[in-house]
Amino acid sequence: MLTFTATPLDRAVNLRGDDAQLRALQESGAARFVPVWSEKFPVNDARIVTLSAQAAMRWDQSNAVFLGLAGDVPWFALALPASEQAPALGGPESFLGLRDLAAVLEGDEAAIAAYALAMTIWRANHLHCGRCGAATVATEGGHSSTCSNAACAHRTFPRSDPVVITLITAGDKCLLGRQAAWPPGMYSCIAGFVEPGETLESAVRREAREETGLSIGEVRYVASQPWPFPASLMQGFRAEALTTELHPDGKELEDCRWFTKAEVRGFKERDSEGDGFKLPSRYAIARLLVEGWLAE
Amino acid sequence: MLTFTATPLDRAVNLRGDDAQLRALQESGAARFVPVWSEKFPVNDARIVTLSAQAAMRWDQSNAVFLGLAGDVPWFALALPASEQAPALGGPESFLGLRDLAAVLEGDEAAIAAYALAMTIWRANHLHCGRCGAATVATEGGHSSTCSNAACAHRTFPRSDPVVITLITAGDKCLLGRQAAWPPGMYSCIAGFVEPGETLESAVRREAREETGLSIGEVRYVASQPWPFPASLMQGFRAEALTTELHPDGKELEDCRWFTKAEVRGFKERDSEGDGFKLPSRYAIARLLVEGWLAE
Repeated sequence: MLTFTATPLDRAVNLRGDDAQLRALQESGAARFVPVWSEKFPVNDARIVTLSAQAAMRWDQSNAVFLGLAGDVPWFALALPASEQAPALGGPESFLGLRDLAAVLEGDEAAIAAYALAMTIWRANHLHCGRCGAATVATEGGHSSTCSNAACAHRTFPRSDPVVITLITAGDKCLLGRQAAWPPGMYSCIAGFVEPGETLESAVRREAREETGLSIGEVRYVASQPWPFPASLMQGFRAEALTTELHPDGKELEDCRWFTKAEVRGFKERDSEGDGFKLPSRYAIARLLVEGWLAE
Repeated sequence: MLTFTATPLDRAVNLRGDDAQLRALQESGAARFVPVWSEKFPVNDARIVTLSAQAAMRWDQSNAVFLGLAGDVPWFALALPASEQAPALGGPESFLGLRDLAAVLEGDEAAIAAYALAMTIWRANHLHCGRCGAATVATEGGHSSTCSNAACAHRTFPRSDPVVITLITAGDKCLLGRQAAWPPGMYSCIAGFVEPGETLESAVRREAREETGLSIGEVRYVASQPWPFPASLMQGFRAEALTTELHPDGKELEDCRWFTKAEVRGFKERDSEGDGFKLPSRYAIARLLVEGWLAE
């Protein structure tokens, strides 16, 4: 199963409107709080360190987000205040970012962490109303932000930015490209944000044209993955190119090439040492697209 | 082709960063401006009334959005200021909302209008920075909003809210439900917003369980459609139910039922007079999903 997708939580959406019950859950002995500090998680022995309600009381809980229920256990995300030094939680934990954690966490913890990270980033970016600038308050268990200016009262909801990411093929070859910021040698699929007024399929075609100069024929949806860096929803596609001449744009992509299956099978892992071509991360949907093609 | 998807525009993303060239395009004799007032468009004889650069100069153009190029013609969206009375543009036009227009406009005009509406609504909701509350300025031809507080400088991009909309089947029947706010008798597919930390497929399963009590087996993507009311990206799915007993939640859905193909073929158009079951709009993706199933 794709990383970040194996959630054990029932989101219990019906409870979000019930402030009294949410407060009772938040104060209950069963509650677990996932602390998020500076977009990082406290980790000990490859497990995220969670807090009890009693331990969580040290921090302002007005921005706590109700994530849902795992059986009888209510889960919350808790943003810890910005500070230069990582807060001390009382154990030997160290704070790590989710990209580093994705490789080591169990699937259910990775999914909870991705959800918690997305919600806390969203809240931090919506402390003020986009319409009038007044402060907002977290509402519906943290699943909406409401303007405190009664004359405005604009309400916003968490955003997910749809991204299309596409493995383009032509005959027996696939197209992979690389951004200058990536580790040397790493090549991956063509990706970009879907814009207002576009379908997913038109975004696939536009991104291919902009970044590689290719014309695209058939487009086929494969799978999706939440990607909270900071708010993406990756939507994986396969596409067949109608042309093969490449014109990498030199901005998004510094290079792109056609590769045979034999060539891609010779790629090394993303984080391996030395020169040569490298695959996208094991936990990224790009890897699923590439592996799916190799297996055909 | 689905309504709102037949765009004639090349978005010319590479021009967005070039302020001088954008200004030249905006002032050129070829430029066309789509006025948007109060989320409505000026219409005459089933065509949207567009403005020349000279006519558009009457209004503040700092929030004009560069939509792209149709051949050599640069297109812009232009939000007209809020006013009680519709502004006079000099012709016999009347202002209509996009839902009403969808049924009468040509495909390419409907697609441009959907894009223009999404961009102007987004801008109006991001006049202030969500992080610090300071005023923002429109940047990159209107495709980003940047905080004017130099110490913050937070930049945001247009949002599209991914929605899953699903035709659920079991054997030879399909499930349709209705919201209390819909026209009497109208039944449609099950829909809801994708949340942070979710895949499209898990959102399909969650919405089905929450709204109808059904468990879902196989899920299959069909098509997508921009739906700027105010910012949705509809993503159409087919799904097979593993159970058939229905428990409409009574909140999102006031009713849901299983229908045979013969029954659905007897449904009337959404806006027809009289009693009886009615179909979703001809221009909604729900209709495409229903028609696709009927044709099998």
